[in-house]
Amino acid sequence: MRSTMQDVPLSIGNLVRYGTSVHGRTRITTWTGGEPRRATLGEVGARASRLAHALRELGVTGDQRVATFQWNNQEHLEAYFAVPAMGAVLHTLNIRLHADQVAYIADHAEDHVVIVDASLVPLFAPILPRLRTVRHVIVTGADTGDLAADGVSVHSYESLIAGRPDDFAWPEVDEREGAAMCYTSGTTGAPKGVVYSHRSIYLHSMQVCMTDGKAVSQGDTALAVVPMFHAMGWGLPFAALMVGASMLLPDRFLQPGPLADMVQAERPTVAAAVPTIWQGLLEELESSPRDVSSLHSVVVGGSACPPALMQRFEERYGVPVLHAWGMTETSPLGSFARPPAGATDEERWSYRLSQGRLPASVQGRLIGPDGAPMPHDGSSVGELEVRGPWVTGTYYGDEDPEKFHDGWLRTGDVGALTPDGFLQLTDRAKDVIKSGGEWISSVELENAVMAHPAVAEAAVVAVPDPKWDERPMVAVVLKEDAAADAAELRAFLSDRVARWQLPEFWTFVDEVPKTSVGKFDKKSLRSRQSSGDLKVVEARG
Amino acid sequence: MRSTMQDVPLSIGNLVRYGTSVHGRTRITTWTGGEPRRATLGEVGARASRLAHALRELGVTGDQRVATFQWNNQEHLEAYFAVPAMGAVLHTLNIRLHADQVAYIADHAEDHVVIVDASLVPLFAPILPRLRTVRHVIVTGADTGDLAADGVSVHSYESLIAGRPDDFAWPEVDEREGAAMCYTSGTTGAPKGVVYSHRSIYLHSMQVCMTDGKAVSQGDTALAVVPMFHAMGWGLPFAALMVGASMLLPDRFLQPGPLADMVQAERPTVAAAVPTIWQGLLEELESSPRDVSSLHSVVVGGSACPPALMQRFEERYGVPVLHAWGMTETSPLGSFARPPAGATDEERWSYRLSQGRLPASVQGRLIGPDGAPMPHDGSSVGELEVRGPWVTGTYYGDEDPEKFHDGWLRTGDVGALTPDGFLQLTDRAKDVIKSGGEWISSVELENAVMAHPAVAEAAVVAVPDPKWDERPMVAVVLKEDAAADAAELRAFLSDRVARWQLPEFWTFVDEVPKTSVGKFDKKSLRSRQSSGDLKVVEARG
Repeated sequence: MRSTMQDVPLSIGNLVRYGTSVHGRTRITTWTGGEPRRATLGEVGARASRLAHALRELGVTGDQRVATFQWNNQEHLEAYFAVPAMGAVLHTLNIRLHADQVAYIADHAEDHVVIVDASLVPLFAPILPRLRTVRHVIVTGADTGDLAADGVSVHSYESLIAGRPDDFAWPEVDEREGAAMCYTSGTTGAPKGVVYSHRSIYLHSMQVCMTDGKAVSQGDTALAVVPMFHAMGWGLPFAALMVGASMLLPDRFLQPGPLADMVQAERPTVAAAVPTIWQGLLEELESSPRDVSSLHSVVVGGSACPPALMQRFEERYGVPVLHAWGMTETSPLGSFARPPAGATDEERWSYRLSQGRLPASVQGRLIGPDGAPMPHDGSSVGELEVRGPWVTGTYYGDEDPEKFHDGWLRTGDVGALTPDGFLQLTDRAKDVIKSGGEWISSVELENAVMAHPAVAEAAVVAVPDPKWDERPMVAVVLKEDAAADAAELRAFLSDRVARWQLPEFWTFVDEVPKTSVGKFDKKSLRSRQSSGDLKVVEARG
Repeated sequence: MRSTMQDVPLSIGNLVRYGTSVHGRTRITTWTGGEPRRATLGEVGARASRLAHALRELGVTGDQRVATFQWNNQEHLEAYFAVPAMGAVLHTLNIRLHADQVAYIADHAEDHVVIVDASLVPLFAPILPRLRTVRHVIVTGADTGDLAADGVSVHSYESLIAGRPDDFAWPEVDEREGAAMCYTSGTTGAPKGVVYSHRSIYLHSMQVCMTDGKAVSQGDTALAVVPMFHAMGWGLPFAALMVGASMLLPDRFLQPGPLADMVQAERPTVAAAVPTIWQGLLEELESSPRDVSSLHSVVVGGSACPPALMQRFEERYGVPVLHAWGMTETSPLGSFARPPAGATDEERWSYRLSQGRLPASVQGRLIGPDGAPMPHDGSSVGELEVRGPWVTGTYYGDEDPEKFHDGWLRTGDVGALTPDGFLQLTDRAKDVIKSGGEWISSVELENAVMAHPAVAEAAVVAVPDPKWDERPMVAVVLKEDAAADAAELRAFLSDRVARWQLPEFWTFVDEVPKTSVGKFDKKSLRSRQSSGDLKVVEARG
């Protein structure tokens, strides 16, 4: 029985039409270091219309890709509105990637136009001549700088949009068509593209505005510290548009000092960023106090948030921290760590430090080492797989079947799910040790070894084993003047982990190799082990 | 460019699977007058599965209609979950309609099964033999009572579901298929059926849980006073399921006393009902105080809420009242009267007394007397037309083109839209006077006449006019011992309304005829006027 409901698509065009009119007086503020740049959402909408007219004139038709190479600022927001609403596809380039990666990604996506911030021209200029599909570069800000490449026209944003109509007949679109794309900087292999649909962005925006989501409402001012080239700025720009929330955009002023200044001056109520940003802000506030009391919800994601950071923010500044989990492939918000009603104070902290609860639209399951689903009992461990209308089902132009499983996305995250739907992630799938059809958590083993008083650092990797498939090997850095051998450390572990998990293989090193962001470089450890470059001792019994 | 997102349908099955597991401990309480009946959402889910198995065995396949004739209680909720999730269509029959209407509606929808509450068997028994498509009646509660009709099997709900499996493989469905249906008790002509889709119910539930919507969250306990046969209980049951909110269901105990008792005992946090329910509760509280402080948001809709009611609820009991507008055709929630950020205290009240602001998913426009769109300037008046994914685009088996206009629903409500999207409805379209290509609001004229000290009541209807198409006629009831003639009243109005709106036709009556719910019966007034049954005097100049 067909329903009688209207078939109105969930589209960015409808959001832009609504937000920029009904909420036309909402403020959009861009930090400049000096006097902030101020506009209303109505003005941003008018400028987005002018931009859309300009892009049409440059030949942007159908689903062509318009890329941005931008900070979080008003012009970036204008591109966010204009490009998907006109039916084209917004491609947010990550300005922090290596030039080779930017060139690869822009070519792979077949970007036709790139909108570049003037301050980023020095970074972009050497990349431009390598881009094979780009025909137009539009520079926002002071002047177009020193940009040139064969077959590419360079435009000033302001000159280009000047004098064009303030409205644009945003077309009706099929809600499953691409609206925006973002590449993941995969740890292995080439970057992979995710194409968000109008539908996925619309539904994700509703979730962000749900009371059990990020609870963004029309009265909020949202400070988007997370870059708008990271998974659509965690959904803040379109969620704010959907309900008419104000936005505070930090542009390139992402250092703790300016961030503290803008919070004090502009009084945002919600904000989103990775833990290191909040850590920096906290340190700044301790050396040089500012008023951050306007913040009533600060979302932390991207990596696990240290408990001390959450506690200090709340106890000292009265700013509640909301932990969230997600990835580029999940639009990105997959869960929110709001404690359930009726939790005790102690339980509340454990819920809040988890990766959070999956909402109705994000189905989760755990797949164990043998490929079978594991129970959601809070202790059984498996790889998290997710499914939902804002979860990707493939990559753009790249099947990568390893990342998908019967229509579910393999997240690469390993952990448990409680019966009430909270995620407790412990490992990356590539870091667990698959031993005899069971998984050993390298993170748990590392923590157990590091609890020994003689140990400064410990990293656990899998080594091949003919009988068990894999077994753990522990690389230990002893504290200065401390001594302990493998037998003693193994004995120490025997109270702490199951017997079958006790490692036989140990190596003592001067330091654990680290990646550029300071994580244990397990790839390097594994290759040193396999090339016989490490002295490995065995301990059994 | 096709997006890479997964194609996961927005379905009731997914909501049921999620809510009854992840939020399995959530409480569902049904009032009984004595000890409340308590269950968890997990138990309700298990019983819904058993019900689905039973319905399959009774031959319910595909999109067959399963009707309910029920109060708001746990069994009604079980049918809400089981019927759409199994792919059939839930049809909530209105127990307050005349037997003729119930029979017409059940036949028109081709109901196959009806689930009836034992306490309603006396009401249902005389209807049953008239139903042409019903093959099974399932009675919830004590016993099956005195029900019989040729070709109809009568079952006890508890016996029927007993011993069946606690889980059901809810099928994947096309989200645009029908999930539930509801008939509007139209003021003219036969009742019309609206078929909600899985998609429309899912999206509407998200809106209800948005912070700028009804803001329902997992920590809430929702008191659904509004009957679940009125436009899906205003969306509360599925919204609560989506986020795992507790529900408090009043069953047949809808009188002010029991309502006050259950609020005090069960401490609901949100509630929804028509103004008369809240009026009754207020009076009850004044004669016999109870603690209603748990309520932090009370939604009022169905008809305009008297300001005094809102003010008294807030000032005396600290319970904020949220005005909402909608209709069966809009799922039903179309707008929420939350004042915009930055409104002054005085502005806040005027916003809150309006019909509210349309959210992003409900597009609104005003169509003036000549069929052209009117500006949204807060003063131009037109008929409200709406469009969106939870707005109906037709009626079930009944085209009724009069109610639709280029893909928009004609709401039949007349008023203005402010630039910031707030609705200010004043009249029903059938009550406005179409005079010389302009509209005259009968409600405004009535209020202006009633401001005269000699007038007790006044009702305005349109009378045909050869030159102007229609002109207003005022029916006046004078206060006892008061005197005023048409000329005096017309002179009194001249300061209050535009000159061209001044009525020429007046009639003095002992009382204004009223409908069964106490509204002015304008149909009766018009027919008395056209049949020459009223003494009409003219006043001009």
